[in-house]
Amino acid sequence: MTQNIYDNPEFFEEYSRMDRSLHGLARAPEWPSLRSMLPDLAGTRVLDLGCGFGWFSRWALEQGAANVLAVDVSQKMLERARELTSDPAIVYRQSDLETLSLPEAAFDLVFSSLALHYVENLGRVFSAVYRALAAGGSFVFSTEHPLYTAPRRPEWLTHGNRSRTWPVDQYLAEGPRVTNWLGAEVLKQHRTIAATVNGLLGSGFALRRLEEWGPDPDQLAAHPEWAEHRDRPMFLLASAVKPG
Amino acid sequence: MTQNIYDNPEFFEEYSRMDRSLHGLARAPEWPSLRSMLPDLAGTRVLDLGCGFGWFSRWALEQGAANVLAVDVSQKMLERARELTSDPAIVYRQSDLETLSLPEAAFDLVFSSLALHYVENLGRVFSAVYRALAAGGSFVFSTEHPLYTAPRRPEWLTHGNRSRTWPVDQYLAEGPRVTNWLGAEVLKQHRTIAATVNGLLGSGFALRRLEEWGPDPDQLAAHPEWAEHRDRPMFLLASAVKPG
Repeated sequence: MTQNIYDNPEFFEEYSRMDRSLHGLARAPEWPSLRSMLPDLAGTRVLDLGCGFGWFSRWALEQGAANVLAVDVSQKMLERARELTSDPAIVYRQSDLETLSLPEAAFDLVFSSLALHYVENLGRVFSAVYRALAAGGSFVFSTEHPLYTAPRRPEWLTHGNRSRTWPVDQYLAEGPRVTNWLGAEVLKQHRTIAATVNGLLGSGFALRRLEEWGPDPDQLAAHPEWAEHRDRPMFLLASAVKPG
Repeated sequence: MTQNIYDNPEFFEEYSRMDRSLHGLARAPEWPSLRSMLPDLAGTRVLDLGCGFGWFSRWALEQGAANVLAVDVSQKMLERARELTSDPAIVYRQSDLETLSLPEAAFDLVFSSLALHYVENLGRVFSAVYRALAAGGSFVFSTEHPLYTAPRRPEWLTHGNRSRTWPVDQYLAEGPRVTNWLGAEVLKQHRTIAATVNGLLGSGFALRRLEEWGPDPDQLAAHPEWAEHRDRPMFLLASAVKPG
């Protein structure tokens, strides 16, 4: 079962103050890349897995999606999402992603932003998504990059002020990683890129694109502090399709 | 153009003394994984890109391949390969992989072991391979893992005898990396996993499987020194197919 850290009141308060929580997709640095992997949304039926404050669900409607099923494990996230966007074309549902029950061939797009690294049994989620998609439907998601999640001590090492390196170890040792984030012990699941890719292929998906996100030159000029993402990417993005 | 370090006499002598040079595939730790990604070879027309001493070409014939075109940039490698295996079903050809001219739809399997990280323009090689394969044909290869090639200083850092970490930096900065290997300055091309995967997809391939190789428990018991490959994989393996 997925840890539901977002219903921890202190954690939730901290999370709510993050740029991407307050201002949505426009403040998520990887969003332009993720957006470029999406199909045309006009008339589509969308499933948003781990919807958080619902920024993507709202954006999908603005792009012409017919309706959105927005799922999150956290009651607090869903309450905030409902406050922010109450359009009846969005149905909010509280559920653990690992045990979510979905209708068959009912969606044209399944989207998930930074939720799947909390999931223990990713293969089960991939199979459920595959079944829930109509033929030709797309699955587009971001997750934490395994370079980011792998280390025992995920902190930059500095070398005499000249350079910094990211201390990779136990990369192939998949499984739980506990880190301190926003003042809480957060449980994430480390898995390799190959495991994610083979999980998609094994569920029947055809892979369309993979991205190890880093800032482009314009983003880097505006946010020099994002340079560390070029040394060690933090986000893995993927686009796959259910063959039609 | 690919650096042809293997025709450097001192380097060649050193390389020739390596376990995998003297004894072939059985001494390459990643070989069982790579072999498991291959199709049935009976009656197939095989292209071996970067054949080295020809161990794979010879094995392919033993598995029933009809014939093999074995290509390498190094004259010395090809001379040794011819000494080791002179079967007329293997045609040896000296060529840079980046400028290799191939017939269209002429092969059922294209194989490449640890050669593609020397190639500058990987997209061109992928497109040439795609064109050379018959519909339904397979492309199976290994290359150095980008975690291995990325760092400015690709050497383990030890931390008070308790642990070691691999110093990742400039992961997203694709391009040349010069390292000292077997006493020579070896020029390799670093590229991300996403670049390799998207290069395949962009050439028309469907991805079948990706592996970030590390030793399995039996291999680890027999070779405790391979544990470092679990902390930081050195080999990336891929299997793709030209849709039929």
